[in-house]
Amino acid sequence: MSEHVYKNIEITGSSTLSSDDAVVNAIARAAKTIHHMDWFEIVGMRGQIDQGRIAHWQVTVKIGFRLED
Amino acid sequence: MSEHVYKNIEITGSSTLSSDDAVVNAIARAAKTIHHMDWFEIVGMRGQIDQGRIAHWQVTVKIGFRLED
Amino acid sequence: MSEHVYKNIEITGSSTLSSDDAVVNAIARAAKTIHHMDWFEIVGMRGQIDQGRIAHWQVTVKIGFRLED
Amino acid sequence: MSEHVYKNIEITGSSTLSSDDAVVNAIARAAKTIHHMDWFEIVGMRGQIDQGRIAHWQVTVKIGFRLED
Amino acid sequence: MSEHVYKNIEITGSSTLSSDDAVVNAIARAAKTIHHMDWFEIVGMRGQIDQGRIAHWQVTVKIGFRLED
Amino acid sequence: MSEHVYKNIEITGSSTLSSDDAVVNAIARAAKTIHHMDWFEIVGMRGQIDQGRIAHWQVTVKIGFRLED
Amino acid sequence: MSEHVYKNIEITGSSTLSSDDAVVNAIARAAKTIHHMDWFEIVGMRGQIDQGRIAHWQVTVKIGFRLED
Amino acid sequence: MSEHVYKNIEITGSSTLSSDDAVVNAIARAAKTIHHMDWFEIVGMRGQIDQGRIAHWQVTVKIGFRLED
Amino acid sequence: MSEHVYKNIEITGSSTLSSDDAVVNAIARAAKTIHHMDWFEIVGMRGQIDQGRIAHWQVTVKIGFRLED
Amino acid sequence: MSEHVYKNIEITGSSTLSSDDAVVNAIARAAKTIHHMDWFEIVGMRGQIDQGRIAHWQVTVKIGFRLED
Amino acid sequence: MSEHVYKNIEITGSSTLSSDDAVVNAIARAAKTIHHMDWFEIVGMRGQIDQGRIAHWQVTVKIGFRLED
Amino acid sequence: MSEHVYKNIEITGSSTLSSDDAVVNAIARAAKTIHHMDWFEIVGMRGQIDQGRIAHWQVTVKIGFRLED
Repeated sequence: MSEHVYKNIEITGSSTLSSDDAVVNAIARAAKTIHHMDWFEIVGMRGQIDQGRIAHWQVTVKIGFRLED
Repeated sequence: MSEHVYKNIEITGSSTLSSDDAVVNAIARAAKTIHHMDWFEIVGMRGQIDQGRIAHWQVTVKIGFRLED
Repeated sequence: MSEHVYKNIEITGSSTLSSDDAVVNAIARAAKTIHHMDWFEIVGMRGQIDQGRIAHWQVTVKIGFRLED
Repeated sequence: MSEHVYKNIEITGSSTLSSDDAVVNAIARAAKTIHHMDWFEIVGMRGQIDQGRIAHWQVTVKIGFRLED
Repeated sequence: MSEHVYKNIEITGSSTLSSDDAVVNAIARAAKTIHHMDWFEIVGMRGQIDQGRIAHWQVTVKIGFRLED
Repeated sequence: MSEHVYKNIEITGSSTLSSDDAVVNAIARAAKTIHHMDWFEIVGMRGQIDQGRIAHWQVTVKIGFRLED
Repeated sequence: MSEHVYKNIEITGSSTLSSDDAVVNAIARAAKTIHHMDWFEIVGMRGQIDQGRIAHWQVTVKIGFRLED
Repeated sequence: MSEHVYKNIEITGSSTLSSDDAVVNAIARAAKTIHHMDWFEIVGMRGQIDQGRIAHWQVTVKIGFRLED
Repeated sequence: MSEHVYKNIEITGSSTLSSDDAVVNAIARAAKTIHHMDWFEIVGMRGQIDQGRIAHWQVTVKIGFRLED
Repeated sequence: MSEHVYKNIEITGSSTLSSDDAVVNAIARAAKTIHHMDWFEIVGMRGQIDQGRIAHWQVTVKIGFRLED
Repeated sequence: MSEHVYKNIEITGSSTLSSDDAVVNAIARAAKTIHHMDWFEIVGMRGQIDQGRIAHWQVTVKIGFRLED
Repeated sequence: MSEHVYKNIEITGSSTLSSDDAVVNAIARAAKTIHHMDWFEIVGMRGQIDQGRIAHWQVTVKIGFRLED
């Protein structure tokens, strides 16, 4: 039945590699405890700088997952 | 005593009937597990289209509920 | 002559029935004291929850009305 | 194949009945010339007032539709 | 290892004393059940008025905390 | 009866002491002529600088008050 | 004494000549009934089109004026 | 009959003369191929600088036009 | 002559590979039917999740292209 | 070589004449000390009112200029 | 002469004491090297949490100062 | 001592390779003249299109760096 209800949460992933990889890490970590994740939206892209170089990319995603009926 | 603390969560309800009904569905589902809900705010109104007609209204609400002391 | 000037005010209506009805109530109340209302824009949709159900829809509208020359 | 591309357009529908009906009218009119419409998002809710009553609801929706490959 | 993942939640604290104290109360309450809180951001400052005086300051904070690996 | 209608106005208070005190001053002044004020929301925090020091805090609040039926 | 309180209102002026002239008209009309106006901020610039040409510029300004103590 | 449907498009006009003239140019160009244009809203004002002087004003307008039934 | 006029459209591209690749796909598809594209701006970054992994990156770009005189 | 880097600064110009002239003044003053200015974007339009008339237009522009390699 | 030009910069101050004190610290530090500071606007209020308590308030202010002619 | 003060600046980097590389280029260029850079936030992602392909990614970052005491 299609009248599903979703909960949306906000997760910040980090990565030394790339902005996309920070998103991948955020979703992989969330998948450990949350089922039925359906979509994500990037809501913030930041990072830490150390000695004039990017130390970490930090990307915040809103994730929607379906609640069990 | 009145110095309460509230948590705010974000839920997306859907409905084949109307935008208001999608809000009603979101709050009814949340009420199954959350007590002391106090207010809601609509933060997004979207929907799915199928064959040129609205298949589902999808309305996202932020809901505030009082935390137990 | 068409170089009219408008004042814009913000009113919040409430209703136990629907979000649209809260708008209708806001405009009906404003019409008691304001003439020449021309347009409205919905700028916020909230509500109160009581016992896990919507007690009131509360919709805030910006209303523009023409000032007499 | 799933790497589809979508175009998003903005349509304003109007209705004397309700805000939801203005959305229905916008999508029905768009469906006359556009195929493969997939989703909509409400991006503005306004209306005209006449003699202290709502004359028209005017709701603006962004509509996404799939482009043929 | 530095590729941490954070969850961000939203809490509203209230206080009869000051806006800063409402933030302090929000974080103190959150600390009862959440570990590894790292930062906060104020996302809304409101309050209740009673008899022409401020009855409560109500400040909403987004709080980020580190998820266990 | 609970289907009240509210008007929202915007007031800027100033203070040489603190940002909170500027809010207190705004509401105290509004209370001289407005009854049934119910809530406020801070919508802007600015100030004047003189000789490298803060001369005034200037805080703008939106205030909602109930209209008589 | 410098702890003044200001009220901020929103006025839409129109002009067939230019966007600046619409602002001038809005302030001139407000000056008929409001004293101690101190500043304005442009918050919206729109207009009506007739027969493929601009019929009116419509500019909305927020105006701050000092309240008498 | 008044339940019209409008399409909204975004056009950027440029001018060496003034910001208003860039709007005029955008609408004049649109009028070559679009009928029933009804309103515009300025959504961005930019420009190019050359040798320390403004070379072009570039103003982006959203234009609404009525779709034929 | 430099007083060009541009039209801005919104396209959503998707990719299983990366967020940048979704932009590349959006622009490649647009290039099939649109000439004189000049710039793009990313206005939304979302994606679909399947089985706890990113199934598609979906990036929405606003694209500006020069209209023929 | 085209991989230039730009710095963006924010300047507020004022004028007793017009909003456009305030922009011209801002850029003319910036040109005294900054080279390679490339573009501007208007990010705020305000003004001072004196005796019910506009005393100054104050327009804030973000200006981008190319950094030397 | 009143056609001044201002530059606006963004400074983040921190304090262990209060949000207002973080603003005071930001302006005091800026005053060491900048003259003719005229106004500030708070554009972000954040902080660090350590062991469940606020370690630092971090408030970001935009500061406007007059450029010498 | 921890009551540091930071200045935030805005830099636009460009790259023919990727959006992340444009950020890397912006920070590398800033590092030539600025010390103690601590964090960045992406505030705009744009690009130039040439012959239907992306010629440059242009990413604007806000960078915070600690001021010497």
